[in-house]
Amino acid sequence: MGTVIKNVLAILPENGRIVDSEKDIVKETSIYIEGQRIVGLGDAPEGFKADKCIDGSKKLAIPGLINCHTHSYMAFMRNVADDLSFMDWLFGRIDPIERKMTDEDAYWGARLAIIEMMKSGTTCFNDMQMNIHQTTRAVKETGMRAVICRGLVGSGDDEAGSMRLRQAFEEKEAAADCDRLTFMLGPHAPYTCDDAYMRIISRKAKENNMGIHVHLSESESEIRQIKEKYGCTPIEMAEKNGLFDVNCIAAHCVQITDDDIKILKDKKVNVVTNPASNMKLGNGFAPVKKLLEAGVNVCLGTDGAASNNSLNMFREMSLLALIHKGVYRNPQCVSARETFRIATINGAKALGLEKEIGSIEVGKKADLAILDLENPSLMPTNDLIAGLSYSANGSEVDTVIIDGRITMEGRKLLTMDERETYAHVQDIIRRIG
Amino acid sequence: MGTVIKNVLAILPENGRIVDSEKDIVKETSIYIEGQRIVGLGDAPEGFKADKCIDGSKKLAIPGLINCHTHSYMAFMRNVADDLSFMDWLFGRIDPIERKMTDEDAYWGARLAIIEMMKSGTTCFNDMQMNIHQTTRAVKETGMRAVICRGLVGSGDDEAGSMRLRQAFEEKEAAADCDRLTFMLGPHAPYTCDDAYMRIISRKAKENNMGIHVHLSESESEIRQIKEKYGCTPIEMAEKNGLFDVNCIAAHCVQITDDDIKILKDKKVNVVTNPASNMKLGNGFAPVKKLLEAGVNVCLGTDGAASNNSLNMFREMSLLALIHKGVYRNPQCVSARETFRIATINGAKALGLEKEIGSIEVGKKADLAILDLENPSLMPTNDLIAGLSYSANGSEVDTVIIDGRITMEGRKLLTMDERETYAHVQDIIRRIG
Repeated sequence: MGTVIKNVLAILPENGRIVDSEKDIVKETSIYIEGQRIVGLGDAPEGFKADKCIDGSKKLAIPGLINCHTHSYMAFMRNVADDLSFMDWLFGRIDPIERKMTDEDAYWGARLAIIEMMKSGTTCFNDMQMNIHQTTRAVKETGMRAVICRGLVGSGDDEAGSMRLRQAFEEKEAAADCDRLTFMLGPHAPYTCDDAYMRIISRKAKENNMGIHVHLSESESEIRQIKEKYGCTPIEMAEKNGLFDVNCIAAHCVQITDDDIKILKDKKVNVVTNPASNMKLGNGFAPVKKLLEAGVNVCLGTDGAASNNSLNMFREMSLLALIHKGVYRNPQCVSARETFRIATINGAKALGLEKEIGSIEVGKKADLAILDLENPSLMPTNDLIAGLSYSANGSEVDTVIIDGRITMEGRKLLTMDERETYAHVQDIIRRIG
Repeated sequence: MGTVIKNVLAILPENGRIVDSEKDIVKETSIYIEGQRIVGLGDAPEGFKADKCIDGSKKLAIPGLINCHTHSYMAFMRNVADDLSFMDWLFGRIDPIERKMTDEDAYWGARLAIIEMMKSGTTCFNDMQMNIHQTTRAVKETGMRAVICRGLVGSGDDEAGSMRLRQAFEEKEAAADCDRLTFMLGPHAPYTCDDAYMRIISRKAKENNMGIHVHLSESESEIRQIKEKYGCTPIEMAEKNGLFDVNCIAAHCVQITDDDIKILKDKKVNVVTNPASNMKLGNGFAPVKKLLEAGVNVCLGTDGAASNNSLNMFREMSLLALIHKGVYRNPQCVSARETFRIATINGAKALGLEKEIGSIEVGKKADLAILDLENPSLMPTNDLIAGLSYSANGSEVDTVIIDGRITMEGRKLLTMDERETYAHVQDIIRRIG
């Protein structure tokens, strides 16, 4: 169940390096951890006595990456449906599998997702799905951190819609004992929730001081559909129904207008960009450059493994850092430093957790990924923030600490048996794939 | 110096899987290797006795990836110059380092490149550079396979240009004892070689039955410059000067016209696409979909580590498979299968080595990468060719065989000391970076 430690000296002072997100630099220092939190950087706090030391020489500690949009259970659907039109993908392959999927299947899917994320340096993910109890169960057991929402689909006068909303609150209640879990409300999208249902969800979110996680403006067909039904853009529809009156995370935002960007900025909406998924499903490129210039808080997500087909945030960072330079024919567009902030502190802000995670600071939770610099992808060690965004592939992550607990060491997961999960997902796909 | 073996049974029949490139399928079989070559698939050849067996259970053998355009020595310049305009990148950072670089520095750069490529499943690379002796030295020592050209810059009446061409032939002669090395001639680009020099090179290539490796139509500024000087496109300039009268590999081809594509097709020119580098330097996206539709042989390259900043062909495959779906808003554009062929057999064709490498076939050289399927990125094992193009990050490669010799086993390189190279490149960059 992971190494639970009271004090940990994560990085030896002589050689260890950490990324200081706020200052965009890499500096040599030590990290002192007590319980869940970082209690010192540099010199040891008075009276600090380490129960365990991690040798930081030839290592780099970074704040754990934050995957701001995924559907973890879908990990077992990796590579089941590729190179298909969107309709063949969804209705021909994904939907039939989801219909046959049991709660237990969703649980093993979530575990597989957590293995992949942890092994590539992600320490927190923002999840939307139907069987949320199975994800909270996997998160609790594995020591991961997550923000969870039940995907809500329905209309205002629909009993099934109310039932789904009740489930969301029941699970929130049931998981109150685990402070690595936070809950949001998850209206799926403007094309699956009607006006009235959106308004009910907004009101519930406001009353319960919860954030909202929604898909917005992903595809051209969505834009057409919403225009036809409501005479406005999906962003305008969401605004009108109060989704932006609470802290809102909007996934995708690929097909958006300049007016949409103004709304997103004015209402402080957090935009999760999902480069791989948006390309893979043929939706194009989100206008990340414009969003950043407008001052919108942009964060990064992988989307589910059925449309990516990876949950590796290092790959997603390199996509983010590269594609917009191609789209705008500008080598200075979306820099390595912007990319790294987008994958860490911006994600924390979007989740309302910026006081707890997203950077290596005294007082914050100890959520860290420690990379072994003795890997060809990071050699020689020049600009390491460029290295994180352009060169690393995730396999350089040697050690992971979440909530002050070591969950991976020497690439060995301490809270899970990888092979048990592999055997389960192989069985699932043989049964229903 | 690697495990030299007479016979090797690479994959156990019960569980081992291989990619059959020609048929685009994954099948269960055994691979029998004798000396440099694959001598059997499936049932053991008569009298075959294995000196060494590799357990193929939960493994996937693929033909080694072929990186068709790189500058290996530049690996030590990884992450020294990022997020800069092209001019600041080249003249502000790269050029000054190259001026201070010694032959020995180029050697360690090439070794670093070979480590990175081998560890991510690349078994052959096509290299252009100045200090070719240092690359051939590194290739000979490490058991890698490579096609080498001396970058040729100059004019027809220029003694330095003739000298460079002589160096190319001298090195070819000197390396005649190593059949893992092939040589091409490397006119750098239409903006660094004049008409007369290009014609001399074409003639020499023809006389000596050698291929040509050239940069063509990489940036908008190149197109403008050539238009101004010669009144035509770089592709037309190259054709006019006979570059396409021999087997030619043209790197980049980003900014090309439909007429250019017709020439490339008619003259059977091989196009190396370099997605990461083209995006990173702000040059855009090569029209890969159009090139494939026209029937041009497209292959894949990473370019140098100073403009990528990775030599990992798995990352390059995922970029290739994803970006064009985004550009054309078409999820069926550049499929996983096309991507995998582009990274293997198409590369072999481009290098004139299609009878020797690029697929797992009896009679071909044994150049293989064997992936460990027990990695979260490839679990569960659904469509493994989709997995190779969309999900793998290269760290799944467990064993590498080149020319029948095991050069990596259990991710440990057998022909090189990784740390020795890391220490050298760290010193180099401290000295001249």
